[in-house]
Amino acid sequence: MSLEKEAKDLHRKLKGKIELKPKIPVTQSNLRLIYTPGVAHIVREISKNKENAYEYTGKGNTIAIVCDGSRILGLGNKGAEAALPVMEGKAMLFKAYGDVNAVPLCIRTQDKEEIISFIKNISPTFGAINLEDVSSPNCLEIVDRLKNLEIPVFHDDQHGTAIAALAGLLNSLKILKKEIKKVKIVIAGAGTAGYGIANLLHYAGAKNILITDSKGIIYEGRPHLNHYKEKLASFTNPNHMTGDLSDALIKADVFIGVSGEKNLLNKKMIESMNTNPIVFALSNPDPEILPDEAKSAGAAIIATGRSDFDNPINNVLVFPFLMRKILKERIKVLDESLFYKTALKIASVVRNPNPNRIIPSLEEMKKVNL
Amino acid sequence: MSLEKEAKDLHRKLKGKIELKPKIPVTQSNLRLIYTPGVAHIVREISKNKENAYEYTGKGNTIAIVCDGSRILGLGNKGAEAALPVMEGKAMLFKAYGDVNAVPLCIRTQDKEEIISFIKNISPTFGAINLEDVSSPNCLEIVDRLKNLEIPVFHDDQHGTAIAALAGLLNSLKILKKEIKKVKIVIAGAGTAGYGIANLLHYAGAKNILITDSKGIIYEGRPHLNHYKEKLASFTNPNHMTGDLSDALIKADVFIGVSGEKNLLNKKMIESMNTNPIVFALSNPDPEILPDEAKSAGAAIIATGRSDFDNPINNVLVFPFLMRKILKERIKVLDESLFYKTALKIASVVRNPNPNRIIPSLEEMKKVNL
Repeated sequence: MSLEKEAKDLHRKLKGKIELKPKIPVTQSNLRLIYTPGVAHIVREISKNKENAYEYTGKGNTIAIVCDGSRILGLGNKGAEAALPVMEGKAMLFKAYGDVNAVPLCIRTQDKEEIISFIKNISPTFGAINLEDVSSPNCLEIVDRLKNLEIPVFHDDQHGTAIAALAGLLNSLKILKKEIKKVKIVIAGAGTAGYGIANLLHYAGAKNILITDSKGIIYEGRPHLNHYKEKLASFTNPNHMTGDLSDALIKADVFIGVSGEKNLLNKKMIESMNTNPIVFALSNPDPEILPDEAKSAGAAIIATGRSDFDNPINNVLVFPFLMRKILKERIKVLDESLFYKTALKIASVVRNPNPNRIIPSLEEMKKVNL
Repeated sequence: MSLEKEAKDLHRKLKGKIELKPKIPVTQSNLRLIYTPGVAHIVREISKNKENAYEYTGKGNTIAIVCDGSRILGLGNKGAEAALPVMEGKAMLFKAYGDVNAVPLCIRTQDKEEIISFIKNISPTFGAINLEDVSSPNCLEIVDRLKNLEIPVFHDDQHGTAIAALAGLLNSLKILKKEIKKVKIVIAGAGTAGYGIANLLHYAGAKNILITDSKGIIYEGRPHLNHYKEKLASFTNPNHMTGDLSDALIKADVFIGVSGEKNLLNKKMIESMNTNPIVFALSNPDPEILPDEAKSAGAAIIATGRSDFDNPINNVLVFPFLMRKILKERIKVLDESLFYKTALKIASVVRNPNPNRIIPSLEEMKKVNL
């Protein structure tokens, strides 16, 4: 059976991959405790101090997955309803791996200000927000503007991807005995993921990062840079290089592709890199180069975002586990310091990394306390 | 142990009365179907036609319980967080009795326009909305303004209460051989519930309804009536009576209390009513009069909203079952015609009504297909 038919059959059969269930059976005798009149005592307790919601309700272990449908997977702007099956899948993963209750909220508006006020309005119900599949740079600004919200906003496309990539990179550098502060790193793609990765690698000590978009290498003063690309220009590209991706890659140690562009990278480009080049072609479903081709061009370590190749660098290694930690420890500030520590921890799960094993498996992650 | 201690202990132990669970286990082998890459086929299917969300996701059996915390139970404006334990309880009932997945969304804003735009924004995710515990008349306007939303908005405090009250009244009138179009009915309380009940009784054929609020009987031209009380004045009080509740009750056949005021009704008032008076003292937790007192004053049939007395007229007999029907049949217009039919059906579940049994039990309702 084709993947398409199998997926459709399963979704049609389930009509919803998640359900909301009572944690205890509802009986005539406990109704007076879980509902009126007993619940009135809980209402009073929380109205005295809203912090008590963490003590008496599910708030502390429940998150909203907020999506406006403007950038679903690699498929583009498909609308709120079309995002539902993805967010239901994500909610399954949050529960299965992190024991976190995640509610998909796919919303009609794609207006930045409305999304911000929507998230503010739902904050009383949830312990944290996971922003998902909102187009860039809207999503980056939304996350920035909500820094002082009373609950943390995790942005998986930005933060989760960066943590997974850094974890894989740390082990790769260890294998090749290279130092992050000395290597030249080229990131292809300056959207949400590229922005998140560049910031985290910078925090982790990388001094020589180049980042490219469809117009080539980003440099300070390049015309028409948006606010976030300006920020990238300010701490990347120390030698003020211009040119395209192939110019950027000359003598580079690391390629990280989050461009969404199939075949963006070719063998010649890899051959122009430094000895023992690291190639992370992370775009899904089609990586920037296929592993076999990268290998034949001399790549020393290769990773993709796909689970059907070695070294799958995928957010699922991060988001359920980090969200569990965020909720458990009531972490309010999600910043590079937290993300860096998380990447170190994930990298350390692999005892003896080798070129075919730079990242832990999901099963291994399940046993870890981040 | 006191009810308070028992309720607190249970809530503290559970930390959330509901949870979001995958309907099937998440395995390495089904990840490709429920998440990437397989889910992309479902995204494409829904983006072609958003109606397909009913076919492939949980939308069709998932509702939001939206509450702004402005009027929680009988406790008043206690804020969004304090509403959470009530809405979690409600979600348990929706699932246990209606097999409906209900997501509590307790929101920060109490601004009417913001609540309306909030509900519009979440509509892609849900098959219906249950508006709950929003103060009157804001809630009435919100429901009116959302009449053309693509999904139905059920307003339990307004619609559910009215249906339950009418079901009980129909059986009471049957027992006493009185006709709805001939009886004089006094409703005490012109908030959400009173408004809903008056409208539904009017639709059901009642010709002589009086409705009172804290200022007495509502009549056309009474100063400072809000829009909804003006509407009430237009179809109630055919003889343009003025005065207070005791004036209204003289020769009345039916009293329905939804005033929230303990001891509002006294024996003298009941004694002034017509022969075989019907007394529904529905305010919770403290009815307008206690059943024993009403009985000693000659009430022929007595009901309250409490399950510790005979004839508990409670919304829980309505909302899980009616919501299941609304979702199953994709009913878009929620109007008096639907509510009336529902009340008839609920009343008919009691085979041989008698003064101590005018309304079915929850267990009986579970076996009914509305």
